[in-house]
Amino acid sequence: MTDLTRLRDDLRAFAAERDWDRFHSPKNLAMALAGEAGELVEVFQWLSEAESANLSPAARAAADEELADVLLYLVRLADKLGIDPLDAARRKLDANGRKYPADKARGHSRKYTEL
Amino acid sequence: MTDLTRLRDDLRAFAAERDWDRFHSPKNLAMALAGEAGELVEVFQWLSEAESANLSPAARAAADEELADVLLYLVRLADKLGIDPLDAARRKLDANGRKYPADKARGHSRKYTEL
Amino acid sequence: MTDLTRLRDDLRAFAAERDWDRFHSPKNLAMALAGEAGELVEVFQWLSEAESANLSPAARAAADEELADVLLYLVRLADKLGIDPLDAARRKLDANGRKYPADKARGHSRKYTEL
Amino acid sequence: MTDLTRLRDDLRAFAAERDWDRFHSPKNLAMALAGEAGELVEVFQWLSEAESANLSPAARAAADEELADVLLYLVRLADKLGIDPLDAARRKLDANGRKYPADKARGHSRKYTEL
Repeated sequence: MTDLTRLRDDLRAFAAERDWDRFHSPKNLAMALAGEAGELVEVFQWLSEAESANLSPAARAAADEELADVLLYLVRLADKLGIDPLDAARRKLDANGRKYPADKARGHSRKYTEL
Repeated sequence: MTDLTRLRDDLRAFAAERDWDRFHSPKNLAMALAGEAGELVEVFQWLSEAESANLSPAARAAADEELADVLLYLVRLADKLGIDPLDAARRKLDANGRKYPADKARGHSRKYTEL
Repeated sequence: MTDLTRLRDDLRAFAAERDWDRFHSPKNLAMALAGEAGELVEVFQWLSEAESANLSPAARAAADEELADVLLYLVRLADKLGIDPLDAARRKLDANGRKYPADKARGHSRKYTEL
Repeated sequence: MTDLTRLRDDLRAFAAERDWDRFHSPKNLAMALAGEAGELVEVFQWLSEAESANLSPAARAAADEELADVLLYLVRLADKLGIDPLDAARRKLDANGRKYPADKARGHSRKYTEL
């Protein structure tokens, strides 16, 4: 059993004990994930890129907590959809490898910066 | 080695092969994660909660892909910050358990719905 | 002078008085807008669609404030990019009218729900 | 009649002609706004702050379109909630002025960068 699977099971129990399953439609969980992603972005919004790589303890603690929230909702949403998130990520990474072959993509970021 | 650790290592290699590390500041990766969270929300925005739990094949494939994108950027961002995302999620889930004791939280969602 | 133009000018003065212009790159302002959009979504995430149309006073006050934040950053970002947001919205609405002719679009939402 | 009021009225007509009102719950519109905010962030995610202030024509056109989408959904959502978005923004700007007095706030951004 992978660690994400264990986390999924713990989240199931967590929701069941609180009778929160009825709030956990995929629609609602996608919203909750987006809300936490917004909070994650707020940690970095006034920092330079260099500062973002060298966070203050307070900012790092905030990033840690928001990352955790995103992952918790992601695992819960994937569970409700019957999707294995790690398997989906593996498949997507493989697809990205084919879409952006290393020899062609070197040093170019995508889309708008290329123009 | 957990599966997320393996994914982290594969993402490191993916970025290195493409010389994309210089784009991968935590600030930029947080933005990318938020962008993918936005795309995930778009899959569900015109669906009812009931429909969101019973997706068409096309919508399910889209959700699968956006979930994957969020997880890939989350693992990459956590790596750049030196955060173990699974450990952070475990700690947050424990904190949530103390914040919302099961006997008090039953059937109540949080914040605005309680008011 | 439209009201949005006056708001733009007030925001310019607000930033100048605080020496905040140097934080207000378009990149940073786009992040701030996304962060506020995330907070806006959080107001609605555990509500049913029907509940969202009939908010409690506390939820309504929260929605009011988050809508305001999104609009403030939108006007500021548009200013920094030299974009007239009202003109952009008008052009987009016209384009949407051509993309979704009323006679064809009746009662269908877009994309995934159609499938 | 302000320009935003006219835009609000045009959006009402637009939705009515397509029978889209039933999709336009505040919950759904908040999701749609967040989705567009995510697309807006994607325009800037791989750009440096300096690059974001000097966009390529393609990136500028994309920013223009995503800004427009955010504003359209914001006006529509505010309408459905019975909120005047310009009035809300004015009130919030006044509150921000009291929260961050110019003499104290000079040159400091908020929260995490201060720590």
